[in-house]
Amino acid sequence: MGRIFNFYSGPATLPEEILKQAASELIDYKNSGMSIMETSHRSKIYEEVHNEAISLIRSLFKVPDNYNVLFLQGGASSQFFMIPMNLIGEGETADYINTGEWTNKAIKEAKILGKNINVIASSESTNFDRIPKESEYKINNKAQYLYIASNNTIFGTEYKKYPETNGVPLVIDASSDIFSYPVDWKNIGLIYAGTQKNAGPSGMAIVIIRKDLCVDKNKNIPTMLRYAIHAENNSLFNTPPTFTIYLVNLNLKWLKSKGGVEGIQKINQEKAKLIYDVIDNSEGYYKGHAQKDSRSLMNITFNLKSKELEEKFAKEGEKSGLIGLKGHRSVGGIRASTYNAMPVEGCEKLAQYMKDFMKNNK
Amino acid sequence: MGRIFNFYSGPATLPEEILKQAASELIDYKNSGMSIMETSHRSKIYEEVHNEAISLIRSLFKVPDNYNVLFLQGGASSQFFMIPMNLIGEGETADYINTGEWTNKAIKEAKILGKNINVIASSESTNFDRIPKESEYKINNKAQYLYIASNNTIFGTEYKKYPETNGVPLVIDASSDIFSYPVDWKNIGLIYAGTQKNAGPSGMAIVIIRKDLCVDKNKNIPTMLRYAIHAENNSLFNTPPTFTIYLVNLNLKWLKSKGGVEGIQKINQEKAKLIYDVIDNSEGYYKGHAQKDSRSLMNITFNLKSKELEEKFAKEGEKSGLIGLKGHRSVGGIRASTYNAMPVEGCEKLAQYMKDFMKNNK
Repeated sequence: MGRIFNFYSGPATLPEEILKQAASELIDYKNSGMSIMETSHRSKIYEEVHNEAISLIRSLFKVPDNYNVLFLQGGASSQFFMIPMNLIGEGETADYINTGEWTNKAIKEAKILGKNINVIASSESTNFDRIPKESEYKINNKAQYLYIASNNTIFGTEYKKYPETNGVPLVIDASSDIFSYPVDWKNIGLIYAGTQKNAGPSGMAIVIIRKDLCVDKNKNIPTMLRYAIHAENNSLFNTPPTFTIYLVNLNLKWLKSKGGVEGIQKINQEKAKLIYDVIDNSEGYYKGHAQKDSRSLMNITFNLKSKELEEKFAKEGEKSGLIGLKGHRSVGGIRASTYNAMPVEGCEKLAQYMKDFMKNNK
Repeated sequence: MGRIFNFYSGPATLPEEILKQAASELIDYKNSGMSIMETSHRSKIYEEVHNEAISLIRSLFKVPDNYNVLFLQGGASSQFFMIPMNLIGEGETADYINTGEWTNKAIKEAKILGKNINVIASSESTNFDRIPKESEYKINNKAQYLYIASNNTIFGTEYKKYPETNGVPLVIDASSDIFSYPVDWKNIGLIYAGTQKNAGPSGMAIVIIRKDLCVDKNKNIPTMLRYAIHAENNSLFNTPPTFTIYLVNLNLKWLKSKGGVEGIQKINQEKAKLIYDVIDNSEGYYKGHAQKDSRSLMNITFNLKSKELEEKFAKEGEKSGLIGLKGHRSVGGIRASTYNAMPVEGCEKLAQYMKDFMKNNK
C-alpha cells in the first residue's frame, strides 16, 4: 500500500526516510555482519550510535554543558514519580500547574509518594482549554521546582512561552513537543519527553537534567530510579533500549536535515496554520477546543456539532488515507497530531478533507 | 558482509529469519501504509500483535491460567526492586540464594528498600562456580518468596532443577534462560526475564506472575511500579515499547517453528555439548569455570592459562567471524553465549576454532 498520513498522538508517524534507512541496514549494520539490535551495549559499534544521539541532542537543542542528557526506560509515566522522588527532599515542596490529564497524573504520583506539593494554577474549570496566564499565579520561591507540561496532547494546548520563575527550576513534560522549537534554558531544571511522539518509537524517555539536580537528596531510592546513577554511567548503567536509541539517532539526523529545531518550527507553524485556518473559516462548523492564544502546534483538537458527525469524519478520513483522527477516549471529538514528522502534504490533505467534508455534510 | 556468529551475552544474536521479516515489513506493515512502530498502541493492528505475543508465551511456555503475563519497561534491573516493593509487606521477609552478580544486585536493591531478607545460601566462597545444593539450605516457610537466578550469565552456572519450596513462592530471574526449557509451574510465584537475551531486543522485561500475588500489599508505591495496575490493563496502562513487543512476537513464532521450548532445549543441549566437549578433552588447556553439575547451556565460561592468551583467543576469533567471546569485565576469561537463537553451526564453528587455537598456541 502507498504511504498513508497518520495523525495518531503517539506512537506516531515517523519520517519515511528513517524507516527506509532502518530497513536497509536492519540485517547487516554497517557491514558488521549483524543487526545493530544484536550487538552488545558495551560494543564500540553501539556506543558510537549512543554517543552520537546524545551529541545530536546537545547540538540541535543547544543543551548547555551543565546539563546531562539521559535515556531512561519507563516512558514519561515513570518521570511522574521519579521527579518528586529525586528532587523533593524532606520538608521541601514543589509547585505544579495543572493543564490536563498528564499534569493531573504527575500531581497524583507526587502525592502517592507523600510529597508536599502545591497546585498554583489550573485550567480545569474550563475543561483545560487554555494555559493559565502568569498573572494568575505566584510561584513559591522556596519551591524545589515548578512543574508544567509544555504541550497538552489531549486538550491541544501549548505554552507559547515558559513561565518566568526567577530562579526556581522549571520541570517540563515536553513529551509531545520536544524538539519542535528552540527553548530558553535560563530557568530549566529538567525537561523530558517520552520518545514516541516527536523523537522516535515508544519505549524510552529522554531526560535532560541540570547537573546540580543530579544529587541524592533522599535515601532508600532504588538504584534504577536515581538520576545520579544514570548520569554517572552515561545511561549505560543497565542495558538501554538500544534499537530505540538507534532510531532516535536517525530521527535527530533527519531533524538536522530539516534545519534543526528552528527549521522545523517554521514548518510546524505552516502545517498547523493550514488546519486552524479551516477551523476559523468554518463559521462554527468546526469548533476548536483550545482558546486561540493557547493553541498547540502539535495536537489540533476540535469538535463537530454531534458525536455522530465526528465519528463519520474520522471514519471517512480513514478511507481517504488520513488515519488516527479520533480524539482521546477521555474527551472525544477530533484530534490531529501534527508532530515534526508529519509532512506538510499530510496537513494540506487534511485541510482539504475538512473543507470537503463540511461541504458534503452541512 | 556475510552473517557472523555473535556470542554476546545480551543484547544478543537473533534468528536471521525474524530480522528479514522485520526488514521486509518495516515501512509498510501488512498493507497498512505505515510501520507497526508508527501505529497507536490502542489501534486494532497493534493490539493483535500485543495479544498474540501474550498468547504465544502462554501456549509455548505452558503458563497456567492463574498467571498474568506482563510486558514492563526498565529491564530486569527494575525487577530487582519491584519484586520486594510489591511482594514483601510490613513485618514480612523473603529468602534469597546468591549465585553471582545479578542475585547480589537483587539482594542489594531489596535492602535499599529496607526490606528484611535472608540470604540462605551462596556460592560466593568458590567464586560462584556452582549452584548450591538443596541439602545446604533451609527455606523459611514464612518467607514471602525464595529468590533465585535460574541462570547466571556472568559465571556460566544454571539450575538443573528449581528448588522444592513446599509452597513458598519461587521468584526466578530467568533473564538469560527463559524459553530455553519447559518449567514446572508448581512452586513458581513469579518468573521474569529481560528480553535482550532469549526473547528479542533490549528494552523490556517479561514478567509472569501468579494472580494472587498481584495485590497491593504496600501503600505509597508509584502506579507504574505496581504489578496490579499492569495486570488490570493488559500491559497497556502506559504506552508499551510496541516495536520491541512486535519483535518478541516474531521471536516466539520462530521458537514455535523450532518445536517450542521442548524442541529448542534439545538443540541447546547439543550446542553446549559441542563446546563443553572441547573443554573436557583439552587436558586442561581450557579450564571451565563452572562445576560440571552446574554448567549453563546458555553461557559457557572458561579460562586459558594467561590473560594474554585469552585476549588473543577473543581477537583471533573475531577475525574468524566469531565475535563477543570476551568474558564479562568483572570476571575476565572467555564467555560464549549460546542462547536459543545461536545456530548449531555457530557452536560447531566455535568448537573447531577452539581446537585449532589450542593446536596453534600450545
